[in-house]
Amino acid sequence: MTGNDLDQLIQLFAKLPGLGPRSARRAVLALIKRRETLMAPLIRALQNTAERVKPCGACGNLDTQDPCAICRDPERDRSIICVVEGLGDLWALERSGACRGLYHVLGGTLSALDGVGPDELNIASLLARADPKEGVAEVILGLSATVDGQTTAHYVTERLMGRDIVISRFAHGVPIGGELDYLDDGTLTAALKARRPM
Amino acid sequence: MTGNDLDQLIQLFAKLPGLGPRSARRAVLALIKRRETLMAPLIRALQNTAERVKPCGACGNLDTQDPCAICRDPERDRSIICVVEGLGDLWALERSGACRGLYHVLGGTLSALDGVGPDELNIASLLARADPKEGVAEVILGLSATVDGQTTAHYVTERLMGRDIVISRFAHGVPIGGELDYLDDGTLTAALKARRPM
Repeated sequence: MTGNDLDQLIQLFAKLPGLGPRSARRAVLALIKRRETLMAPLIRALQNTAERVKPCGACGNLDTQDPCAICRDPERDRSIICVVEGLGDLWALERSGACRGLYHVLGGTLSALDGVGPDELNIASLLARADPKEGVAEVILGLSATVDGQTTAHYVTERLMGRDIVISRFAHGVPIGGELDYLDDGTLTAALKARRPM
Repeated sequence: MTGNDLDQLIQLFAKLPGLGPRSARRAVLALIKRRETLMAPLIRALQNTAERVKPCGACGNLDTQDPCAICRDPERDRSIICVVEGLGDLWALERSGACRGLYHVLGGTLSALDGVGPDELNIASLLARADPKEGVAEVILGLSATVDGQTTAHYVTERLMGRDIVISRFAHGVPIGGELDYLDDGTLTAALKARRPM
């Protein structure tokens, strides 16, 4: 239908999550219409990312510098390490501004089905970092409340056991703005059990 | 939150149609995870498009060669020119395989509100091409059934008047798979008026 180059570009865009062939075509049309203001900067930003962004040696976050901006930040509370599954979770927590400590990106969760064992995740580096002598006082497990997430949380807890470190996990409960009517039984039970005085 | 380079990349992705900040983040995460298989080819394809794709001098279609693949194709019926608003419409018609003639991309529609006059569109080149002496027998106006689209259709019809050329437009009617109950009055009236024997 169109030039092969355009077709190829559309097919690549269609591989991105949330984009299908139709939205990929729209995206490519928008890029062609705005060559100077959108396409050229996008090419530069992609090249920059491809060349310069690498994982932080300490926490696994991605940045152009190693250690990353969060690990370098002197304002951060170095006694707290928040363990997350992936970069997306780290970004979500940073957007919320809720975590003032450091992070540790596992790069996934343990999964018997997918054949992901402890060696496939950044667990060894977490065990090396989580040292009370280095001033670490708390490890917060910010993992998904799924089977794999909780398996991983239990595994990490077990491995950290015996160290002079508080190990905590995120609370379960009713999401802000959530209607009870639409919540599952597990969440409701957890929310009721963990009730707090007004 | 993240390195400035990543932030910038996410913001650029979020400017594409159909993508917001959230889906832009997901797209960037997917690109970082698949640097070699997705990010590198995407950069190359974008560069290729930015450098090599240009409008066809005859019809306005985009291709790496001028004239474009459609204008060069010897199988095409050169007596028919299908006039469309933009590249997206041309792609849609090509996907359907319904048009065996050539195209002419206007680059928009006349619009008093947006200050688009005949000089802003590729109308002069259409008038030059639509020449019975060159073998052109029919101009099909494949323009949207909107006020601006129909204004443009009428304008082009007027300008081509007097030449020995059939000027036609797409039929209005019930879309294939469409339910009558959900159609607007205008479409129903048009479909009833243009009824055909079974």
